[in-house]
Amino acid sequence: MRSMSGPIRWRDGRLELLDQTRLPDEEIWLRCERAEDVADAIRRLAVRGAPAIGIAAAYGLALDASRFDEAAELLGSTRPTAVNLAWAIERQREAREAGADLAENADRLAGDQLESDRRMAEHGARLFGSGERVLTHCNTGALATGGYGTAIGVIKTAFDAGKVERVWVDETRPLLQGSRLTAWELDNAEIPFKVVTDSSVGTLMSQGLVDRVVVGADRIAANGDTANKIGTYTVAVVAARHGVPFHVAAPLSTVDPDTPSGTHIPIERRNPTEVTTHANAENWAFDVTPAELIASIITEAGVHEPPYDFAR
Amino acid sequence: MRSMSGPIRWRDGRLELLDQTRLPDEEIWLRCERAEDVADAIRRLAVRGAPAIGIAAAYGLALDASRFDEAAELLGSTRPTAVNLAWAIERQREAREAGADLAENADRLAGDQLESDRRMAEHGARLFGSGERVLTHCNTGALATGGYGTAIGVIKTAFDAGKVERVWVDETRPLLQGSRLTAWELDNAEIPFKVVTDSSVGTLMSQGLVDRVVVGADRIAANGDTANKIGTYTVAVVAARHGVPFHVAAPLSTVDPDTPSGTHIPIERRNPTEVTTHANAENWAFDVTPAELIASIITEAGVHEPPYDFAR
Repeated sequence: MRSMSGPIRWRDGRLELLDQTRLPDEEIWLRCERAEDVADAIRRLAVRGAPAIGIAAAYGLALDASRFDEAAELLGSTRPTAVNLAWAIERQREAREAGADLAENADRLAGDQLESDRRMAEHGARLFGSGERVLTHCNTGALATGGYGTAIGVIKTAFDAGKVERVWVDETRPLLQGSRLTAWELDNAEIPFKVVTDSSVGTLMSQGLVDRVVVGADRIAANGDTANKIGTYTVAVVAARHGVPFHVAAPLSTVDPDTPSGTHIPIERRNPTEVTTHANAENWAFDVTPAELIASIITEAGVHEPPYDFAR
Repeated sequence: MRSMSGPIRWRDGRLELLDQTRLPDEEIWLRCERAEDVADAIRRLAVRGAPAIGIAAAYGLALDASRFDEAAELLGSTRPTAVNLAWAIERQREAREAGADLAENADRLAGDQLESDRRMAEHGARLFGSGERVLTHCNTGALATGGYGTAIGVIKTAFDAGKVERVWVDETRPLLQGSRLTAWELDNAEIPFKVVTDSSVGTLMSQGLVDRVVVGADRIAANGDTANKIGTYTVAVVAARHGVPFHVAAPLSTVDPDTPSGTHIPIERRNPTEVTTHANAENWAFDVTPAELIASIITEAGVHEPPYDFAR
């Protein structure tokens, strides 16, 4: 097993990010010296995954503490859907107002993330029976959080407890975070998996080959409606038809109490050329899964079931 | 508009097939001199689409009439799911027993296909209201039938009657028959379209952007259960949740009265490397949509609704 120490590191007052656009072919670290470098890395998905974006932005603010407001606005505008970005910027703003060192506070946020990932994993793994076949979508491992992972963290902990027989990995078009990143992480962790095209979810479930679905989240509305990588909703609809439990695993920093329901979540549209070589494409990056299709939401605080009260 | 004369032509006693693996970048015609050449083209999807495979196999038998049984066995074993292949071989066997010329009979089958495509298109187009947004999966145009197309034929005829505002084209992983072939055909026909990733179907439907789904078929069981390109069932489940009518368009030669229901249809599994560069993938080529999710099945005989009686 190779190092799973995460895609974000702070060295000698500079931020280094593992370029996730180059994985699994090459492990290249980007050196960021200004907030602009971090914003650029977030925009082009060199760093991605809602929690990891938040941590990277927190370090980005540490790079440019002297022009905090400008850097915060720049970083905050990089991607609209994940709420962790705004959350991390807010935590750094509070730290700055309290006179704290922003790099040290970013370290603390990263440590908190790892800790909450581990607690989430323990809570989630208890939901599993034995020898389950689990399906996941997109990438939610250490690469996506800078810690232990959300949905993949749950799956790893369940696997270590002998509760997972195999993971079905949706390839996750258009940018293939499943077949590139999740496959790489599961391979490193020596967890058995198979990649399938996103559209195979119907066949998998109609053949009875999936016992449980666990995915991450980019924003969870107050009512439990959850925005996540495009295709998540399609999986949830098929899972509901086949009675397969569908879970969301995310830190509480992904819950946005100011967003009452999914219809209020802004959905990023990216460049059509990510889908085809020509412009005749529509490329929503996320979709919203209504709370009614979600069996439970797993956070570091525990396993939440509807009606949701995340503040409990 | 470029020529839509179809991907199969018979010239001077030889069969020429438009290599669909090279589209849309290059228009390259393969020359087939033996049944082996045709079998190879079918296996590697240079010619694909259930009706087109049948027509190509019929010409393949004309190339090797002197060793008919051997050629029939070879061609019949190339792909397991589409029933048109077996149907076309059977038509050629009857022609041979009646002393007919096999090339002339293949011409007649191709002519019949074009005629049935056109009738199917007329029947199907009558289902449309005005200005509809139609979603389709995989490729079902002239490339897939050698004629006018099945689902795409219906959509073209509906468009010509002013009933289609836009077509949503699923890219259709892993081999991208949607973004490569359907996009190319709709572009040629000057019909407005947008390509989306297969997993976007949930977002499209939850936003109310799809009025109707029309797809083709590789085999229709006696009860209406329909095998088609992997991902079709996923689309049907999401369509059902959103009350979007889901239609299948196919010639009667795709109906297999000897297959009582979908569970009896053999599903081809192809090489995992079509999905990823490594072997850790599962690559079903088709799935089965149960009759209960299909609003109607459109054939050259008309619009069939459940309970199905195709022999009427």
